[in-house]
Amino acid sequence: STRKSNRFPSSSPSPNNPGFLQKNNNVDEKGRIVGPFTEQPSPKNLLTRDNERGSRFRHTETDFSNLYARGDLLFSSCWRWWTSSLTTSARHLTDPPKCWTSTIHTSCWRAWRASTWSFLISRRAWSRSCVFVCWSFICSKYVCMYCICCFFHRFTYEIAPVFVLMEQLTLKKMREIVGWPNGEGDGIFSPGGAISNMYSVMVARYKHYPEVKTKGMTAAPRLVLFTSEHSHYSIKKASAVLGFGTENLILLKTDERGRVIPADLEAKVIDAKQKGCVPLFVNATAGSTVYGAFDPINEIADICEKYNMWLHVDGAWGGGLLMSRKHRHKLNGVERANSVTWNPHKMMGVPLQCSAILVREKGLLQGCNSMCAGYLFQPDKQYDVTYDTGDKAIQCGRHVDIFKFWLMWKAKGTSGFEKHIDRCLELSEYLYNKIKNREGYEMVFQGQPQHTNVCFWYIPPSLRDMPDREEKRQRLHKVAPKIKAMMMECGTTMVGYQPQGDKVNFFRMVISNPAATRSDIDFLIDEIERLGQDL
Amino acid sequence: STRKSNRFPSSSPSPNNPGFLQKNNNVDEKGRIVGPFTEQPSPKNLLTRDNERGSRFRHTETDFSNLYARGDLLFSSCWRWWTSSLTTSARHLTDPPKCWTSTIHTSCWRAWRASTWSFLISRRAWSRSCVFVCWSFICSKYVCMYCICCFFHRFTYEIAPVFVLMEQLTLKKMREIVGWPNGEGDGIFSPGGAISNMYSVMVARYKHYPEVKTKGMTAAPRLVLFTSEHSHYSIKKASAVLGFGTENLILLKTDERGRVIPADLEAKVIDAKQKGCVPLFVNATAGSTVYGAFDPINEIADICEKYNMWLHVDGAWGGGLLMSRKHRHKLNGVERANSVTWNPHKMMGVPLQCSAILVREKGLLQGCNSMCAGYLFQPDKQYDVTYDTGDKAIQCGRHVDIFKFWLMWKAKGTSGFEKHIDRCLELSEYLYNKIKNREGYEMVFQGQPQHTNVCFWYIPPSLRDMPDREEKRQRLHKVAPKIKAMMMECGTTMVGYQPQGDKVNFFRMVISNPAATRSDIDFLIDEIERLGQDL
Repeated sequence: STRKSNRFPSSSPSPNNPGFLQKNNNVDEKGRIVGPFTEQPSPKNLLTRDNERGSRFRHTETDFSNLYARGDLLFSSCWRWWTSSLTTSARHLTDPPKCWTSTIHTSCWRAWRASTWSFLISRRAWSRSCVFVCWSFICSKYVCMYCICCFFHRFTYEIAPVFVLMEQLTLKKMREIVGWPNGEGDGIFSPGGAISNMYSVMVARYKHYPEVKTKGMTAAPRLVLFTSEHSHYSIKKASAVLGFGTENLILLKTDERGRVIPADLEAKVIDAKQKGCVPLFVNATAGSTVYGAFDPINEIADICEKYNMWLHVDGAWGGGLLMSRKHRHKLNGVERANSVTWNPHKMMGVPLQCSAILVREKGLLQGCNSMCAGYLFQPDKQYDVTYDTGDKAIQCGRHVDIFKFWLMWKAKGTSGFEKHIDRCLELSEYLYNKIKNREGYEMVFQGQPQHTNVCFWYIPPSLRDMPDREEKRQRLHKVAPKIKAMMMECGTTMVGYQPQGDKVNFFRMVISNPAATRSDIDFLIDEIERLGQDL
Repeated sequence: STRKSNRFPSSSPSPNNPGFLQKNNNVDEKGRIVGPFTEQPSPKNLLTRDNERGSRFRHTETDFSNLYARGDLLFSSCWRWWTSSLTTSARHLTDPPKCWTSTIHTSCWRAWRASTWSFLISRRAWSRSCVFVCWSFICSKYVCMYCICCFFHRFTYEIAPVFVLMEQLTLKKMREIVGWPNGEGDGIFSPGGAISNMYSVMVARYKHYPEVKTKGMTAAPRLVLFTSEHSHYSIKKASAVLGFGTENLILLKTDERGRVIPADLEAKVIDAKQKGCVPLFVNATAGSTVYGAFDPINEIADICEKYNMWLHVDGAWGGGLLMSRKHRHKLNGVERANSVTWNPHKMMGVPLQCSAILVREKGLLQGCNSMCAGYLFQPDKQYDVTYDTGDKAIQCGRHVDIFKFWLMWKAKGTSGFEKHIDRCLELSEYLYNKIKNREGYEMVFQGQPQHTNVCFWYIPPSLRDMPDREEKRQRLHKVAPKIKAMMMECGTTMVGYQPQGDKVNFFRMVISNPAATRSDIDFLIDEIERLGQDL
């Protein structure tokens, strides 16, 4: 029996024996594994790291947060260290364990676990060498672990322990930044913002009509959803996929700058109720796709509270601004949302895909998606199975989206992301100021853009003196597609365009890479004029 | 006007000017880009490549198809070449273009496009150097392209041209292997088998009740779905997510080996109709999660035709057997399915994630998921926008899952995958033969497994002479969890377990890596006995 208890250690981990496979670890204990994220205990302290940088990061070899101007960190500096290192210390990677995608794992699990964890829990600042070692070590070892996981149809703690903890800690940090007390709540990384938004509608439905899970949509009254006419089409897709029907998604009017008019929401809620429908869900967009507009969350939240509706904030594009002290006010009220979509793969430059759905109330994701598949998620395991995330997701195995984000955050720090965001917004301000009064340009909406989206028409000389009639509209509609096509043929640059409502095709320049420079912007404008002058 | 027509080349590409950005390319022309996949014109020839190998592959440096025994190709050999090469020809990767995730693409698009395509369309066999050059070149260049794509919320041909074509050609090849005439049909790569199965239910619903897209589930009668009680839980998840309700998913009885009993399906269809429900969809599992059972597709297809139901084949786990002349008969009738899920990331060893949903009828995926988001998918582009796949998916931007699969197929060849599959099944046969009559083992079902799943109980000596009563059951239920926990503590090996129906916890050994050996199997059995003898 002594021998047995050695094999099954007791459930109270001691400081020297973290006992990560045992039950009763709380998040704080696990915090030591994933390290410095927990150094900022409250949202208040979150953005004050710069002041403490001196003492805390003194022995760091490189200030990662400043690397942004020389290219995206993860894909230049880290990449360079990693690749150059492979030839010297390439034992792990050039001699991969036999067990890739196999269930027979013959390398020593215990040694691997112990060494990895003792490395991860160290509180040393993340120096260059540290980031490199972590990167190559985890890549070689955990990806292997994860392959096993996927093969088994699982996303469980035992199979991908560090990734599960990374995800848990990072989501908690994101919820803190959103402003939910102590970062409480739930969440999961999903394959993209469209799926994250779909999760929000599913969870809202489960919260208000849990019987739909078993009985289907016919068990609920006629439910209606609301979103801005400028919102991303994934909300419409969700309404079709989930069985609401796109006709039960009601589009809200926006002001001239693309922001939802709260009074229109309230009027349409009242109207829907009078028609016998039940208003269920409101999506407020934080950073719309085309205009980069931020809906007024606080005013929308008031209406949601009044009529007992779920408030979702789609911050897929604009969520990154929460990292900036200067710009996060644009999302004021986000802490009142029931759920938030936030894609670090957009504004924060994390490689695709990395999208999080955050839910304020705990347990809903699990309740909504759990199917009690006992043959996949065994409750009689030797560790706390609440760490197994598989039953929260609509997927089974998932891609490891968390690792790149976590490592990037470790390297750049919160303040690095802040600089990244601020720099992009400065650049778009530069573009806006450059063209707002320039001959041949017309802004699609007046005033400085809220996000990095700068929307404008280029009007070739031949159209400038034409009267503002249908013929001019029709010709202007073809200008942006032509210029873009020529850009692609020439291979010099590329910028997107689209119509919006009754507005003909216009250019939409967005900046998410802080490595772009003012001279890039100047070049873009020169190029548009060079290619468009004869149209 | 001459200058302009140079910029906008005519719509009829000549043999010397493939004109890939122009309209009217058909799949055959594009086939030249993605090369040898089209060398096998019909399913009949598909698996006869070995015979032709001599002449066609004479100048190949290495026979990739034989590499499997020395480890997974993509992650050992290719990986080694790639990493070692980075230091010598690392210009692309160590000096990444400034445009990562930016919209300003200042490197020369035209030169890049021309050089890449002229390389890809060459019909040379894929020698080692060729695979390496492709790998590093595409990694450095296209991943960059793709990042732009994702940032823009798009999955369009102009942004990820080669990936879009790779996906199209590979899906066509997979449909040919399924047995649909000329590989006609549709499909998409999705983030995992659960989502692929969800697509199948969505598409079935759209085919029979297209009005649900706009009016919601209340516009349809009460629809019911059928699946085996042994099927993967993702079908149940889909019924909850899509608004059918899990109670409207009817579970079918299986025989002792886990295969659906067709008579039970017909009886339940008749019963459902009598209750006023409309039978919509039947899922036949090809390779069930636990037993590895293959449902009798032909008999199920007969019933589906008789009652006008959609037939989906979930070949997530067993689809890989289609690559083997020896084993593909287990999926006989799969060509009668309306849709098929097939995960190359499972049995075929492609790194996670790589899952395809194949649909026999063209246009349904698009019809089902298109939201006509004009601001994202502009119909006035200069190329044939039917190549833009974004409107087929429930996602917006997607991860590039195709590339690893495509490259692996190029390197191993169809016959390499066949050997991979055959080898895994031989190994599981070895395990089965080793334990079927061994003392202390009991098989969960009798007879040789259809797939590589070998399901068995290990009965410790202390239980062997016990009468077959509840007490023995309860003790046996705890054996597998205990042994697995000890395996993890010791770090020697790991094998999964689960209960199924009224059967207590049993081990399920599955093999998908052909690098495993008979001595690994021997070791596994030794280890189970070493750890379990005192229980």
